[in-house]
Amino acid sequence: MDIQNYMQTLGRQARAASRQLAAASTEAKNSALQAMADEIRRQREALLAANAQDLAEARAAGLDAALIDRLTLTENGVEAIAIGLEQVSALPDPVGEITDVKRRPSGIQVGKMRVPLGVIGIIYEARPNVTADAAALCLKSGNSAILRGGREAINANRAIAACVRAGLAAAGLPEHAVQVVETTDRAAVGALITMPEYVDVIVPRGGKGLIERISREARVPVIKHLDGNCHVYIDDEADPAKIVPIVENAKTQRYGTCNTAESLLVARDIADLYLPAIARMLAGKGVEMRCCAESLVLLRESAIEGAKLVAATETDWSEEYLAPIIAIRIVADVDEAIAHINRYSSGHTEAIVTENYTKAMRFLREVDSASVMVNASTRFADGFEYGLGAEIGISTDKIHARGPVGLEGLTSQKWIVFGNGEVRK
Amino acid sequence: MDIQNYMQTLGRQARAASRQLAAASTEAKNSALQAMADEIRRQREALLAANAQDLAEARAAGLDAALIDRLTLTENGVEAIAIGLEQVSALPDPVGEITDVKRRPSGIQVGKMRVPLGVIGIIYEARPNVTADAAALCLKSGNSAILRGGREAINANRAIAACVRAGLAAAGLPEHAVQVVETTDRAAVGALITMPEYVDVIVPRGGKGLIERISREARVPVIKHLDGNCHVYIDDEADPAKIVPIVENAKTQRYGTCNTAESLLVARDIADLYLPAIARMLAGKGVEMRCCAESLVLLRESAIEGAKLVAATETDWSEEYLAPIIAIRIVADVDEAIAHINRYSSGHTEAIVTENYTKAMRFLREVDSASVMVNASTRFADGFEYGLGAEIGISTDKIHARGPVGLEGLTSQKWIVFGNGEVRK
Repeated sequence: MDIQNYMQTLGRQARAASRQLAAASTEAKNSALQAMADEIRRQREALLAANAQDLAEARAAGLDAALIDRLTLTENGVEAIAIGLEQVSALPDPVGEITDVKRRPSGIQVGKMRVPLGVIGIIYEARPNVTADAAALCLKSGNSAILRGGREAINANRAIAACVRAGLAAAGLPEHAVQVVETTDRAAVGALITMPEYVDVIVPRGGKGLIERISREARVPVIKHLDGNCHVYIDDEADPAKIVPIVENAKTQRYGTCNTAESLLVARDIADLYLPAIARMLAGKGVEMRCCAESLVLLRESAIEGAKLVAATETDWSEEYLAPIIAIRIVADVDEAIAHINRYSSGHTEAIVTENYTKAMRFLREVDSASVMVNASTRFADGFEYGLGAEIGISTDKIHARGPVGLEGLTSQKWIVFGNGEVRK
Repeated sequence: MDIQNYMQTLGRQARAASRQLAAASTEAKNSALQAMADEIRRQREALLAANAQDLAEARAAGLDAALIDRLTLTENGVEAIAIGLEQVSALPDPVGEITDVKRRPSGIQVGKMRVPLGVIGIIYEARPNVTADAAALCLKSGNSAILRGGREAINANRAIAACVRAGLAAAGLPEHAVQVVETTDRAAVGALITMPEYVDVIVPRGGKGLIERISREARVPVIKHLDGNCHVYIDDEADPAKIVPIVENAKTQRYGTCNTAESLLVARDIADLYLPAIARMLAGKGVEMRCCAESLVLLRESAIEGAKLVAATETDWSEEYLAPIIAIRIVADVDEAIAHINRYSSGHTEAIVTENYTKAMRFLREVDSASVMVNASTRFADGFEYGLGAEIGISTDKIHARGPVGLEGLTSQKWIVFGNGEVRK
């Protein structure tokens, strides 16, 4: 198989379909999504059988338990895919929305119209549900999608893709609106990310290695996030009642998510008063604490039962543990907290706990991350929590989309002019 | 001189300055811009002397007349630079603007805050005024700038940069907020576009060759436009009174601008009726017409005095003439017009002339260009005409900034969350 040629064909077909999709009615897109959901439910046994084949091959190949876990599709998982499609169908259609129309002195009225990006390439690893989720978000935002899933999930992905195609056909939408790359050859990824004439943007979903490689080699824009090294800063004017609940939620609600706090900064003036209580909560949940010299002394003196205290090294300030571990540093004040965050953070999400208005506003303005919060858990950085309805990922870049990326992040705007025969003077 | 090392130093300094600039007050930025304008006026003689040196070297090197023209700075040109700085000072500051705040069921309030991109690299050719214009737009939008002008203008650029530095100092802003690359070594460009750790976005201003090379080699996002192959489509339901004035303005007001019309599409049903009148106007202005077979026959039959009629070839549909030449094609209807434009256009600006509401709205929605207009001249596609106050360029990309790019295009947004101790359930 000539991979370059095959991918060029997918690209050409996607580009052609994107022209039709951009003009498709909301009704047609929604009825396609509903038809996909119906077909997913009808094909439940076929999907589970395809997944069982993937799982058997993965086990035979000795893949690790975490990957097997991500790969596994259950009956509930199939239903969740169908519900996800219906949820996207229920979201408002962003395409064609006209905003910001202003009359200019020349007489023309200038505004903006939201439009699809065109063709989106999605590159992901083992999770088969991404095939349906990504297809739905791209379709609703009027974009063609070329989906390249992990080789481990190829059978489930093909089965889901068949349901997606059935849904497109039922609604009379172009069959190439969503295409799944049918080869597991890695050269297909290389081709997909270097066809600016056919692919407008790449969204990689997966491990850091995958995303770094794609960012380095792509010849088209990439909407991505690498790390989530999120911070909580406890200011000396924090409301004591908010401190422990926010740290507890931010660090311990889930350890493996990108919006989980990995670093805790505490203002020196109140460290004696509140850090031991935080440490007791963390010790009770079995969270290891990687402490700066000052906090290490303080917490050792506090003699908290079961506390795992370790001296932090420089690398701890940049680490995304994704585990029951947290880095702790005592800082002088909000200035030092902001400086620390802007130096070490991955730019994902940071929170300040304070009752001081000016410090809250300075933190919001000066911290250079995709989400910045006052008196709330970093765990809120999420497309559903922000009201986007669904998200295709979280971007830590500043160009185009930043933070949780929903339908709007998969669109662009064009300028539109309503004239009445005006010419330029 | 170790260029890599030198550029890394500029980058590091720009990054550090960008942190301070992001937090700078509107007042400080405006007073720096006013101080720059004052200094430009005070240094008029020095600027003209520096420019004279550039011009002498350019003439000695035998550079062509068009380049000499772009390079030349007059007394009026110096005043225009000062006025440009004052105009940017008068624009609203986009940084820190909070929008779209919504209360979520969890109790948090989620919104967006406009923030600078960080560090912007500007690469331009001979025009020395770009040094001041670009510095002003970057500064007002809270970004550090690294400016790399053409080697032909190095003396004027250095003199203008000295005025810019004086303005920054007068307002107490960091001296590295605007830096001019002091070497004419081309390796400096290669370094500037491959430092994602220090430079967030590149804005190239210049010829197509420069922009293509930068786009190909950059490792950071590039805000750019290549061609302006703009179209005017005369629909069969066009208001006869609007046809000739719009074509005349779009094609002949200025030949060398990117928003000038290069292709004219005419609906078959009214071609007999109105194309001869358009051709008479074009012939009167000495505009050569590159005609499709059908329009060539029609216009030859019309025997218009002085008409330069040439048979168009396939390449004419993609050409940006920047000259008194226009491509003319008769199309069946709005569908064929949209298909022609989406195939051949550079995605800059297109206009339809029609009184039919549905066709106007379809044209607005389905034409995939940065600016799409109804009953107005393509010449309106411009930052000042759109009310942006000033523009750093016009983007034909869809990612991040599209169409005329003003202060807003040099910024991003972050999500902000106002909480009251909320944690995620």
